[in-house]
Amino acid sequence: MAEKLDAQTVREWGRRYSNWGRWGKQDERGTLNFITPARVLEACALPRSGRVISCALPFDQNGPQSGLAGRHNPIHWMLADGGDALAGAQDFLPGGFNYADDAVHMPLQCGTQWDALSHVFYDGKMYNDRDIKLVTSQGARANAIEKIANGVVGRGVLIDLPRFLRIPWLDDGTRIQPEDIDACAEAFGVAIGSGDIVLVRTGMLTRCLEQKSWQGYCGGPAPGLSIHCARWLFEREIAAVATDTWGVEVRPNETPDCFQPLHMISLRNTGLLLGEIFFLDELSRACAEDGRYEFLFTAPPLPITGAVGSPINPLAIK
Amino acid sequence: MAEKLDAQTVREWGRRYSNWGRWGKQDERGTLNFITPARVLEACALPRSGRVISCALPFDQNGPQSGLAGRHNPIHWMLADGGDALAGAQDFLPGGFNYADDAVHMPLQCGTQWDALSHVFYDGKMYNDRDIKLVTSQGARANAIEKIANGVVGRGVLIDLPRFLRIPWLDDGTRIQPEDIDACAEAFGVAIGSGDIVLVRTGMLTRCLEQKSWQGYCGGPAPGLSIHCARWLFEREIAAVATDTWGVEVRPNETPDCFQPLHMISLRNTGLLLGEIFFLDELSRACAEDGRYEFLFTAPPLPITGAVGSPINPLAIK
Amino acid sequence: MAEKLDAQTVREWGRRYSNWGRWGKQDERGTLNFITPARVLEACALPRSGRVISCALPFDQNGPQSGLAGRHNPIHWMLADGGDALAGAQDFLPGGFNYADDAVHMPLQCGTQWDALSHVFYDGKMYNDRDIKLVTSQGARANAIEKIANGVVGRGVLIDLPRFLRIPWLDDGTRIQPEDIDACAEAFGVAIGSGDIVLVRTGMLTRCLEQKSWQGYCGGPAPGLSIHCARWLFEREIAAVATDTWGVEVRPNETPDCFQPLHMISLRNTGLLLGEIFFLDELSRACAEDGRYEFLFTAPPLPITGAVGSPINPLAIK
Amino acid sequence: MAEKLDAQTVREWGRRYSNWGRWGKQDERGTLNFITPARVLEACALPRSGRVISCALPFDQNGPQSGLAGRHNPIHWMLADGGDALAGAQDFLPGGFNYADDAVHMPLQCGTQWDALSHVFYDGKMYNDRDIKLVTSQGARANAIEKIANGVVGRGVLIDLPRFLRIPWLDDGTRIQPEDIDACAEAFGVAIGSGDIVLVRTGMLTRCLEQKSWQGYCGGPAPGLSIHCARWLFEREIAAVATDTWGVEVRPNETPDCFQPLHMISLRNTGLLLGEIFFLDELSRACAEDGRYEFLFTAPPLPITGAVGSPINPLAIK
Repeated sequence: MAEKLDAQTVREWGRRYSNWGRWGKQDERGTLNFITPARVLEACALPRSGRVISCALPFDQNGPQSGLAGRHNPIHWMLADGGDALAGAQDFLPGGFNYADDAVHMPLQCGTQWDALSHVFYDGKMYNDRDIKLVTSQGARANAIEKIANGVVGRGVLIDLPRFLRIPWLDDGTRIQPEDIDACAEAFGVAIGSGDIVLVRTGMLTRCLEQKSWQGYCGGPAPGLSIHCARWLFEREIAAVATDTWGVEVRPNETPDCFQPLHMISLRNTGLLLGEIFFLDELSRACAEDGRYEFLFTAPPLPITGAVGSPINPLAIK
Repeated sequence: MAEKLDAQTVREWGRRYSNWGRWGKQDERGTLNFITPARVLEACALPRSGRVISCALPFDQNGPQSGLAGRHNPIHWMLADGGDALAGAQDFLPGGFNYADDAVHMPLQCGTQWDALSHVFYDGKMYNDRDIKLVTSQGARANAIEKIANGVVGRGVLIDLPRFLRIPWLDDGTRIQPEDIDACAEAFGVAIGSGDIVLVRTGMLTRCLEQKSWQGYCGGPAPGLSIHCARWLFEREIAAVATDTWGVEVRPNETPDCFQPLHMISLRNTGLLLGEIFFLDELSRACAEDGRYEFLFTAPPLPITGAVGSPINPLAIK
Repeated sequence: MAEKLDAQTVREWGRRYSNWGRWGKQDERGTLNFITPARVLEACALPRSGRVISCALPFDQNGPQSGLAGRHNPIHWMLADGGDALAGAQDFLPGGFNYADDAVHMPLQCGTQWDALSHVFYDGKMYNDRDIKLVTSQGARANAIEKIANGVVGRGVLIDLPRFLRIPWLDDGTRIQPEDIDACAEAFGVAIGSGDIVLVRTGMLTRCLEQKSWQGYCGGPAPGLSIHCARWLFEREIAAVATDTWGVEVRPNETPDCFQPLHMISLRNTGLLLGEIFFLDELSRACAEDGRYEFLFTAPPLPITGAVGSPINPLAIK
Repeated sequence: MAEKLDAQTVREWGRRYSNWGRWGKQDERGTLNFITPARVLEACALPRSGRVISCALPFDQNGPQSGLAGRHNPIHWMLADGGDALAGAQDFLPGGFNYADDAVHMPLQCGTQWDALSHVFYDGKMYNDRDIKLVTSQGARANAIEKIANGVVGRGVLIDLPRFLRIPWLDDGTRIQPEDIDACAEAFGVAIGSGDIVLVRTGMLTRCLEQKSWQGYCGGPAPGLSIHCARWLFEREIAAVATDTWGVEVRPNETPDCFQPLHMISLRNTGLLLGEIFFLDELSRACAEDGRYEFLFTAPPLPITGAVGSPINPLAIK
């Protein structure tokens, strides 16, 4: 189709697929509002086996970051350790009893994470008509991650595209369309509805782990959601979407004059929670084993005050 | 009672209440092993309302840390923000589209957190007969937090002692005994069994927030579990225990020659997960409202490789 | 005198005592330009004894910072240490040979330091007509500290006011006037001229160390330079001025509607290098001993690219 | 020559070239003791032009570090900036006056730096018979960098080997022998004596900058001082030696069973200050221009308490 996609499209679709004001002028939770208590209860009824699966990549120096945008892998160090005990450096503690402590320095977007609703913006505004002047060196005074401290709990659905397509991973540049997601869901016998948390597996992370190379993972060409998913995400009332890629969206982007256009539409206007760098391989195997692609899903952010994102350890409970 | 409690008691009780080898020589999960898949399923059946409650204190400069043991409150800063957008510093991005990013430096024990099974040790050994030489500046090569990445999910029980005793908070120095816990549980109509995650509210954090002072919170006198809970925790097969205090245990400690003796027995020998600085006030109100003190509880650590603890956002799903 | 000092004064005096353009439109060194090679040579001829005195406060957790403006004391930790060697954690190195490494996290304004010419600004401009849009999360793209990497070397002069006045320290709130500086210099037999680096000792830091309390040191009432020094600093062609206080200037400030007005005039308009938290007690004693209040002075910043300040270890060579 | 060099050589030469006890049992300054006040005065008399040259590489993300040994390039960020001012985030300051602040996280060995006398050790001991148990997570309680806070000031000598040999840089693996240094010094008309600070330029850093690649710079093959320099450094009573390479010594090392043997002998036993990653290109040109290879040299460390090294900005004053 000869449709032209550009910055104008982004602004126009932003207006179309906007939830600004839908949950009041003060709202800072966006599409998480779709997860009503009733839906939490329904999600709790999903597990059949009691198996718990982590969707987090380990947080360490083997992570994907390359320095792009000042993001580096987590730096972890010890404040006290067993070596100190051996050296007698803890002899201020009586009786030969000792301890270890540690610390971390991490960009909040360095690994498995949620983007807060203050993460992207344009024309001076972020989600729900909030001024970007509220996001300064002092942190985000609106739409910050701690506003969703009691989320994210709901029904999770895995869209396992490589398994559906019987390929190890999608090619870089593959544009995932709404109909691809629907076809995959139908094939695996799972419906997607309002308030769902949709995990889209592209296999890109599988490839990086298998090839032991993160080359291109951060910001390079990647499979991902097409900008055309914006309408689908809006109309289906998706609560959150996450992928095993760096940035959810297909790369190169479909809009030459807008970087990460789906973020701009869906995060800023729809108020949609976006999750990135999810490790979905173990979950993929588990779903294939029992044939069930829905599960109770929990992924609360660390409520770091004023943060525009948070590292997380998402759990699928099957 | 004239019983003498000292370092010898700690070592003796450590032998008595030991789970070393119980789940194999390679085990690094300790009492989380009590949470079988069947128990996860049972826990998923507990919610009635679908209400989700966070038990995390916000992670920021208003936190409790005073510098003791090199622990400071989380330091959060921006790598990119709205001010940059206003200044044109993001004009390398086309079309007027912008973003914010951030980072954190935090001791892993600074706020709401789990202690890993490598957090305390004595006589050269930590949980499951592992040498403390495995815990160095390079991190913990055994019993580290990432080994429980797919925990902690199970049945949570709130032991709300101030509410039970109709007082705002327990006095500093109050030794909480097993019979206190049992009496409280019975009064609120909840049984405690194998694999449970027990949240003990003392009200100390309530007091600090109300008085707007963390004076003494970190390491000072505090209400907390008596060393006599070690046997109860072991025999009841508790999976994890957490409090709204700095260190779970009563302070001053009951053993003049051992700092934090319950840690030494229960974490090192029993292999028990200990949680600290839990914010239990909202959960307290919610349980009082619906009269149900049990709930589905999730509190996965961030899988920071080699870490001896992790900040968490624990959720109670009622 | 009934003179009214306010924000208007600051703007007016800024225009009067401006060096914008004096050393060209591209200049980013400000008054350091007064230190010509000839003056460096003259300074090298000053030493008589060969004694070297550090004017830095140790960088550690005992420093003065209280958290004001997000400034904390330096956090130092080990990446490798002797305990690791004992624990065998360095056995990847053959032969029993080991090492230690470490790291630091420090606000650049936390201790003995220079303010860069990008440190303060108003009306959208900093020194030499540069736009403040050049100072963003990406650092300062103009007037940054690395632009003076080959400074600061010159003739230093100590103005030891407490010794001159025969008091242990100046009272908080004492406004140091140009005539006070001149009188002190004359009394100690030292002339102040173009290109000099003037170190003004108030004794405030002496008091804090003696009383073992930093209470009020950071941002509280303090002795310091009066705003009336702006003209003197400009006309005398001082290259840099530093004190043993938090902020050079008298506190409370003399302008109710402008915080740190001397910074605004002298740093922004005059292009003067300001030094803070200098430890001048040992230097005070040394100058009293030999009766010479001039010396070769070196205090190069760390050339941290884009930084708006730098910790330093200033040396007086007598 | 068929001489066998190994760990035994290192221990034997360590005994031969030891200064332990030479300046007393309490000494923590090592060979800096050779720089007497008289020699400082002599050094102050060296400058002829008043030109000041920085020998520091900029501290930023373009630095040489690759992650080896947990060392990364400096991470710099803003705590307050011009963008904040534009966003109104500093409106708590009256009158439209604003400021910028910043912070850094840096391994102390990441750039131009001195190794402290606690940086390397073996057989349980570091310089001057101090136990390595004094170097733990709490920092170095002996031989730490702050013990030389009032150094390093003295006579500097540039040994510009590429210029002497009329090549752009020495090949990787080139072993620099004492006679090479002496020949170069003689050719450039400069004598090397007790208390001198010797800067050895290999051109390796020149090459990296020219080729815009740090590949191999950190820990890879490199030109550098042969282990045979240990005797020369000891007998000549050199106060400090620094190079434009990562680790002073030739790489691969001449001892298969000892990593960085010259460090082990000269730093640990001789008590010699070692400097690394010095930027000597501008100094090289300046010395060639005026034909003088000696100068006043200052390079004080930041007195970070307990540190085993320090970033520095060394200055040559000609």
